[in-house]
Amino acid sequence: MQLSLLNQLRDQNPVILNISNFVTVQDVANGLNSLGASPIMSEEIAEADALVQMSGAVALNLGAFTKQQLAHIQKTGELANKYHKPLIVDPVAIGAVAYRREVAEQLFQQFQVDIIRGNAGEIAALAGMDWQAKGIDAGEGDGDKVTIAQAAANQHHCVVILSGPTDIITDGTRVVQVKNGTPLFQLHVGSGDMLSSIVAAFAAVSGGDYFAAAQTACLVFASAGELVASELPAELPGTFAMKLIDELHLVTVAEVERVARFA
Amino acid sequence: MQLSLLNQLRDQNPVILNISNFVTVQDVANGLNSLGASPIMSEEIAEADALVQMSGAVALNLGAFTKQQLAHIQKTGELANKYHKPLIVDPVAIGAVAYRREVAEQLFQQFQVDIIRGNAGEIAALAGMDWQAKGIDAGEGDGDKVTIAQAAANQHHCVVILSGPTDIITDGTRVVQVKNGTPLFQLHVGSGDMLSSIVAAFAAVSGGDYFAAAQTACLVFASAGELVASELPAELPGTFAMKLIDELHLVTVAEVERVARFA
Amino acid sequence: MQLSLLNQLRDQNPVILNISNFVTVQDVANGLNSLGASPIMSEEIAEADALVQMSGAVALNLGAFTKQQLAHIQKTGELANKYHKPLIVDPVAIGAVAYRREVAEQLFQQFQVDIIRGNAGEIAALAGMDWQAKGIDAGEGDGDKVTIAQAAANQHHCVVILSGPTDIITDGTRVVQVKNGTPLFQLHVGSGDMLSSIVAAFAAVSGGDYFAAAQTACLVFASAGELVASELPAELPGTFAMKLIDELHLVTVAEVERVARFA
Repeated sequence: MQLSLLNQLRDQNPVILNISNFVTVQDVANGLNSLGASPIMSEEIAEADALVQMSGAVALNLGAFTKQQLAHIQKTGELANKYHKPLIVDPVAIGAVAYRREVAEQLFQQFQVDIIRGNAGEIAALAGMDWQAKGIDAGEGDGDKVTIAQAAANQHHCVVILSGPTDIITDGTRVVQVKNGTPLFQLHVGSGDMLSSIVAAFAAVSGGDYFAAAQTACLVFASAGELVASELPAELPGTFAMKLIDELHLVTVAEVERVARFA
Repeated sequence: MQLSLLNQLRDQNPVILNISNFVTVQDVANGLNSLGASPIMSEEIAEADALVQMSGAVALNLGAFTKQQLAHIQKTGELANKYHKPLIVDPVAIGAVAYRREVAEQLFQQFQVDIIRGNAGEIAALAGMDWQAKGIDAGEGDGDKVTIAQAAANQHHCVVILSGPTDIITDGTRVVQVKNGTPLFQLHVGSGDMLSSIVAAFAAVSGGDYFAAAQTACLVFASAGELVASELPAELPGTFAMKLIDELHLVTVAEVERVARFA
Repeated sequence: MQLSLLNQLRDQNPVILNISNFVTVQDVANGLNSLGASPIMSEEIAEADALVQMSGAVALNLGAFTKQQLAHIQKTGELANKYHKPLIVDPVAIGAVAYRREVAEQLFQQFQVDIIRGNAGEIAALAGMDWQAKGIDAGEGDGDKVTIAQAAANQHHCVVILSGPTDIITDGTRVVQVKNGTPLFQLHVGSGDMLSSIVAAFAAVSGGDYFAAAQTACLVFASAGELVASELPAELPGTFAMKLIDELHLVTVAEVERVARFA
């Protein structure tokens, strides 16, 4: 676990380009900004080349898009490869919606992704394994999540984050499990989207070690949420979302180390 | 008033498909999620069939859209009818903008809506009655709001919610008035959009009794807002919005019963 | 400084039409609403004529748009000129992205803007002066900011607001500097977008004195932020964003006068 990446992120303030989910875009931008990165969002392919070049990493969210936006997403992914920028993809709801899975599979043939972040239903769909996803939620399945994540990583030749109550991070061989967190993440729409873009911010300062970037991002994010939840008098999803933005700005390496639970 | 629907909603966690207003989409998603439903948003017609099939109800918000999105809205409404899913429409600003009224009238000829939720200016426009709407706000008029709501319900053969300081719910004949609430709802953009999608969530678990679903949704939402407002030391629109998300998660049938004022 | 404009704004509750940045649109709508204006957002050119006519001012945000939306932005600007509505433009990231600068320059040839609000990187780009902008952030440069703002104002024959730790407001000749504020504005994505639309709200009630409207809007907004920040126990970007919405509703002329620092 390279927690020093958190300080590097704040020192370097990397520009993170997001093709974002319109549902959660402001929350993602504020999460990146609070943590110490510089978010930029775009919907226009004509500026894709310039924006990718100025960015430290690229996060593509497949959460909600039109066919027109698909060309933009594809081009941005190709440019990330061309300019050797870390490329993170969040395949929202591909476990529940066949159209989204088809689109994702076509996209993954156009560019090489470095890190994929999804819930169990989404990662199972990537791995071609059985799972009962439910809309944007993980749903339920019998498969072993570590096996599912490893299969997806091996098929896509990248690091995979299967996030949930326990986050599983794997490069196909090595596996780290982050056990921090809080159920309040599931009660706030956009927690997963925010994590995906935060993973991109860590990747931007990781010197190419995406396995380290992925696990550190998960640990920092999960610990920040856990720290916020531990101070709340009840399950307060609105207050949690606000204080998570506060905590992403304030949380220190020492605080994360104090609560960290991973294996 | 079937307040047991609140518990059924939380037990069943219905997927609610929203064609949403981009202005308020995250707030609506979080409101649904906090209350106990599972929101999904979409902008792509290619996935409309799959998403409608997996949903418990469909909420169409006419708040802000392009001509391209209209085809998506129309298709989604038709599919809701085809698959017998409760269909809720929020006709934002049709009282103030002639183009929006024309679009809404064309849409209402393409599918049969089950519940319409709007403010006085919007419902008066639907009923073809005089009213001075103001932008997204209700504006002012002399007509009797109960008569306006009943006329709109009879013309559109559906349940109508005319929301405001007092919510009027009618199927054209029967009328229920929910008197709970707080002026802070008017100070937060998106309160109406959130109510419309929450009405869809109640409709999803109502077994087809949309009159019951509409009035219960209004009572729960208005009571949650009133409970939040009663704890605030001043008119704080930002704090209200955050705590409303908290309260939608926490509010119980017993608490609603304690403050409920309706007739 | 015409602080009485704040009371006029609340009395008149002007409709403000926004072609908005999808990243920050809900925050902008809520800021306008809390302050006392009536926001309306649109993405559809077919309703542009009606919406401009019913508005007290028009705010165009160039923050994130597609080519299709450009036609809408251009038409709305032309209509604002035609109907003599105050026209405010926020040229987001034109200092960092050549495509955005080209688009902005083309737009400025199609209509006459009344007030431009941007950060140092954006205003330097408008003035054709050297500056190292960074994504959506101001970046760094050696030029004198007052000179830059005056040059941009003279070139575009309008009032220019160069906002930052000190806001510089100029009509090309006269200069006012507002020294209130807090670093928390930079930690919340959308602070600049919100200020631009609030400038439009003040312009709507200014009787055509856009230099007065611009400086008063800056002073009210910066003072509201400073008042909120002074009550926070730490740098809390999430809490700040929420309480800023509260304060825009509550802040009085007397409170602004008490903390005002400008020259």
